[in-house]
Amino acid sequence: MKRFMLTWVLFILCAGTANLSLAQSTVYTPATDLTLVGKVLPTQQVYHRVDTADHPDMPPAVKRLLTNSAGLAVAFKTNSTTISAKWCTSPRTTLSNMTAIAYEGLDLYIKKDGRWQFAGVGRPNGDCTEYTLVRNMAEGEKECLLYLPLYDETTSLEIGVAAGATLQPLNDPFQKRILMYGSSILQGASASRPGMAYPARMSRAAGLNFLNLGLSGSAKMEKAVADMITTIPADAFVLDCVPNSSPDEIRERTAYLVNTIRQHHPKAPIIVIPSTVRENGAFDQEVGKRVQAQNEQIKQEVAKLQRSGVKDLYLLSYPRQLGEDHEGTVDGSHPNDLGFDRMLQQLQPQLLKILRKCDLAGR
Amino acid sequence: MKRFMLTWVLFILCAGTANLSLAQSTVYTPATDLTLVGKVLPTQQVYHRVDTADHPDMPPAVKRLLTNSAGLAVAFKTNSTTISAKWCTSPRTTLSNMTAIAYEGLDLYIKKDGRWQFAGVGRPNGDCTEYTLVRNMAEGEKECLLYLPLYDETTSLEIGVAAGATLQPLNDPFQKRILMYGSSILQGASASRPGMAYPARMSRAAGLNFLNLGLSGSAKMEKAVADMITTIPADAFVLDCVPNSSPDEIRERTAYLVNTIRQHHPKAPIIVIPSTVRENGAFDQEVGKRVQAQNEQIKQEVAKLQRSGVKDLYLLSYPRQLGEDHEGTVDGSHPNDLGFDRMLQQLQPQLLKILRKCDLAGR
Repeated sequence: MKRFMLTWVLFILCAGTANLSLAQSTVYTPATDLTLVGKVLPTQQVYHRVDTADHPDMPPAVKRLLTNSAGLAVAFKTNSTTISAKWCTSPRTTLSNMTAIAYEGLDLYIKKDGRWQFAGVGRPNGDCTEYTLVRNMAEGEKECLLYLPLYDETTSLEIGVAAGATLQPLNDPFQKRILMYGSSILQGASASRPGMAYPARMSRAAGLNFLNLGLSGSAKMEKAVADMITTIPADAFVLDCVPNSSPDEIRERTAYLVNTIRQHHPKAPIIVIPSTVRENGAFDQEVGKRVQAQNEQIKQEVAKLQRSGVKDLYLLSYPRQLGEDHEGTVDGSHPNDLGFDRMLQQLQPQLLKILRKCDLAGR
Repeated sequence: MKRFMLTWVLFILCAGTANLSLAQSTVYTPATDLTLVGKVLPTQQVYHRVDTADHPDMPPAVKRLLTNSAGLAVAFKTNSTTISAKWCTSPRTTLSNMTAIAYEGLDLYIKKDGRWQFAGVGRPNGDCTEYTLVRNMAEGEKECLLYLPLYDETTSLEIGVAAGATLQPLNDPFQKRILMYGSSILQGASASRPGMAYPARMSRAAGLNFLNLGLSGSAKMEKAVADMITTIPADAFVLDCVPNSSPDEIRERTAYLVNTIRQHHPKAPIIVIPSTVRENGAFDQEVGKRVQAQNEQIKQEVAKLQRSGVKDLYLLSYPRQLGEDHEGTVDGSHPNDLGFDRMLQQLQPQLLKILRKCDLAGR
């Protein structure tokens, strides 16, 4: 017992010293003093995606999801050899099909040889965490991109660098604005960390700003949501909302969403993504039939709209879905990083081809 | 308020009815009446991997980890169109770099066209959960393989099928016994679900029983652990313990582990895997140097042992590590499913080639 007490006292002392040394040597700056990347619309609470007070008729679930910081990142440059963060999120805890790092943690990329490269994560520990994402780096200035939690509300965020080091805003590294409206899969379930959400991967790969309006389980094309979407300044609109919409909802709501976007954004391409495979649908016949019906319905709706004269409306195709080994999901519905990779290998070239055709992407 | 109360009462009634209907129509059988696949050694608590009382000198962390059910699966056949499970795990909760499904959930595969195919997961909800993994299946007998939690202790498990349906043990579908000793990466961090741990993937791909002796953070080749490993009946031994062992530990301990295995298993091939890349080591120079030193050291030790006359000792190589995009980990250290896939593409052919040469794997 005596030995146990001594160990415990030593532990508390050491933990205290470690925190003290972190606190002494690290200088924190609010992320709001740096560059916020991926904003869908300006908001009062800076890490929300849309101010829901402006759109009172939207469903409650959509309003709640718009407080999640999915797709947001902070861009900065520093010559610090260590990068830390202090952040707080809501009291909610991680879903069983996600890591806490993806749900409420941070994900740091640093430019290396002209490309964004993964550098470290911020592991959440309760609602407020202080964490060193990377240490022992070489001297010299680094360009950094820190992704925020995908599924939680971020209520505060500060970036920490070594005392005496520089810390400055970095210009938004991404061009144009491609608004992506969709389901949990778009929001980032179940990427292993925030930077692995598929719009974030496409942004880094193509240098374009794919804005994440993923609304987990709630991308159902309601009129109030469609009206909100049309207020978003964007050069193109990608719709990945088929997985959440029933065949009936797809039949009843697609035309309004597409026509309303077209009315407010006459030149923006509108690109529709069919539902990804539901791997549990291989055995659960009801699930299998539903996905087939959703994809049949969206195909019909897009064809109808194209015939009615809507220009620059495209439907992508999924020639090989998430892979022939059926291992691309965490739970049958949500791609894991392997599934996302296979998804991007198919969708990204199609998407970029359209954006290039519309002069929105480089060769 | 009145409306809220009414909603709440209705919710409770509905939830009660749903549970009741699940309870009425589902018949549960203890998993111990079925076939347990992947057992390292016989144990008193059936879902432990090794009885630690038999090896009192092992480090406490190793003893605790041996209570985790990593690598265990239940094999059965049933004509039920629905498969449920009731299971309990310890009060521990998921690590921030894992999903709860992987840490303390279940993962079901069903034979389809001669191959094991993912069918559904058991999402944990607290320490004890009842969950339907798949429903609405076609009639007919199915061969099933249900993977247990990777990182938690499983204290009980029952398989549920529809009342009146058959449920019988299925013969162990895997041949031979390939003991794999290694780190968290082997144990399954950070696969998205239990069946995605890399030994499980190799077992399904090759039809061989790769036994999971992954010891998260604690695969350090201690003498007492080496002595325990030699008691395990196995046709081959794979050592993936470099990531947890310091260069000094590798220098001091590899020879004892390899020689002791060879002494007790004169004909079993011993196959060593170098440490996977640490993606955070691209920026953290200390981490980068350590991995390089670990891999240099294991190369020297294996070469020394080969020169000293140890036959059938192999060191695999990692020509392309986890991919040129550096996206193959959840946190810098632990592969995500994408990283595991890239790892297997490189290691599995080398491993199977050796096992074939030793007549342990088919052509």
